[in-house]
Amino acid sequence: MTAAVCELFAMSARHPATVRLSFSELARRGGATGPHADGWGVGFFEGRDVRLIREPTAASESPFARLVSDQSIRSRNVVAHVRKATRGERTLSNTQPFVREVLGRVHCFAHNGHLADLDQLSSARFRPVGDTDSERAFCSLLDGIAPLWVDGPPPLAMRLEVVAAFARQIAPLGPANFIYCDSDALFAHGNRRTQADGVIRAPGLHMLTRSCAHPARPVDTDAVVVEHRATDQQVVLFASVPLTAEPWTALDEGQVVVVRNGDVSV
Amino acid sequence: MTAAVCELFAMSARHPATVRLSFSELARRGGATGPHADGWGVGFFEGRDVRLIREPTAASESPFARLVSDQSIRSRNVVAHVRKATRGERTLSNTQPFVREVLGRVHCFAHNGHLADLDQLSSARFRPVGDTDSERAFCSLLDGIAPLWVDGPPPLAMRLEVVAAFARQIAPLGPANFIYCDSDALFAHGNRRTQADGVIRAPGLHMLTRSCAHPARPVDTDAVVVEHRATDQQVVLFASVPLTAEPWTALDEGQVVVVRNGDVSV
Repeated sequence: MTAAVCELFAMSARHPATVRLSFSELARRGGATGPHADGWGVGFFEGRDVRLIREPTAASESPFARLVSDQSIRSRNVVAHVRKATRGERTLSNTQPFVREVLGRVHCFAHNGHLADLDQLSSARFRPVGDTDSERAFCSLLDGIAPLWVDGPPPLAMRLEVVAAFARQIAPLGPANFIYCDSDALFAHGNRRTQADGVIRAPGLHMLTRSCAHPARPVDTDAVVVEHRATDQQVVLFASVPLTAEPWTALDEGQVVVVRNGDVSV
Repeated sequence: MTAAVCELFAMSARHPATVRLSFSELARRGGATGPHADGWGVGFFEGRDVRLIREPTAASESPFARLVSDQSIRSRNVVAHVRKATRGERTLSNTQPFVREVLGRVHCFAHNGHLADLDQLSSARFRPVGDTDSERAFCSLLDGIAPLWVDGPPPLAMRLEVVAAFARQIAPLGPANFIYCDSDALFAHGNRRTQADGVIRAPGLHMLTRSCAHPARPVDTDAVVVEHRATDQQVVLFASVPLTAEPWTALDEGQVVVVRNGDVSV
């Protein structure tokens, strides 16, 4: 029995922070048996836009992944994914995270798990470019949430309602851990995951909150380094599996967490 | 009087070809006085998706630009831009090319020039993320052309009609050279440009067609290297200013050229 090797990582920070991601390390920690990832990607939000870098190749062999890992890209919202192909070919269009523009803001989505019976997930305005269940789910979510965006960001409670309903809709279709960021708020849904013993059960996502009222210190692991410079920095991290010995909290099955600027709202 | 330093480059090829772009060279050849570009970007189509790499920084100082230039990324359709900020701040969201998904295909756009009186360029479904006239124009074009995309690519003549009408609409607003690729066809519109003597006049875009029925040979310049491997390769290149001593053709003012798989259709 093989543990799932798709890995999610996300960050929301009060002040832009650098996140140095080692994608091959991330995949290894997540239970991969080797560096045989089928793709990797990361979206660094810059205001309403996203700097998206992704490749349908093993991160361990990619000079772009090394460069992303080495560069000090500063961002408030980060969404990252390492992929083991379960559905869809190894192509760029099947590589997460996915992005779409809604009312002049780029929205970003990454999913871990596999979804069956997707026929109930229709979408009209937003259409998948690739063949993955994950992108299809994202398009369906956006079709539901885009109508709320008519004149700037809608109230958070309205957005959460749609995201939570979407999470309830896809949870029965299969493991459905996801990160969704609309450039203002970051939503994380914890579901189930293939655990170390090969059984699929909760938790599928973990969370770590760090406040740096004390002198800044990094969250330092082999896979992820987050550097906090500001002394009033506050950061929330999400990861499929805990990346450090710190007190990561497992999300309950079905729990949706909303974070804005490093502050947990719900 | 300063020559315009925004530069367009595009390629359409029968078989995927590698394009090694030196963005700082591209800017220098285009009349820049130094490597003080405000951004650079390139979209490499991979099927219906685009590998988009862009930064709001000088290409000459960017390790990403060096890496893109060094890598042998193979593509059938390439759209590239080097930016000197004329409108809008130096941010990622103001950095070209721009992309949007339409019916499961990523459409890509880059513009050289500056447009005034943009109030007549409204858009509803697609909204600009940044502040540039160029992105606003792209959104307006997509609002016009997206309704044609209902069941796969619409007939080329229909698409051309919308693109040509759009070109006629924006041409009076200011220099309006643009490249637009819908992942199937690549459209190039030649307008006017600040010439070496500082006067704005046509041509604003040049084109080069190469057939390689003979043994493959590269289009080799300091700025762009296109490698043709297949012996039946056929490539069309567009650039703001000719990049080699070969017989580049200046586009007439108002001319729209359509290319598919390295074949000029119109």
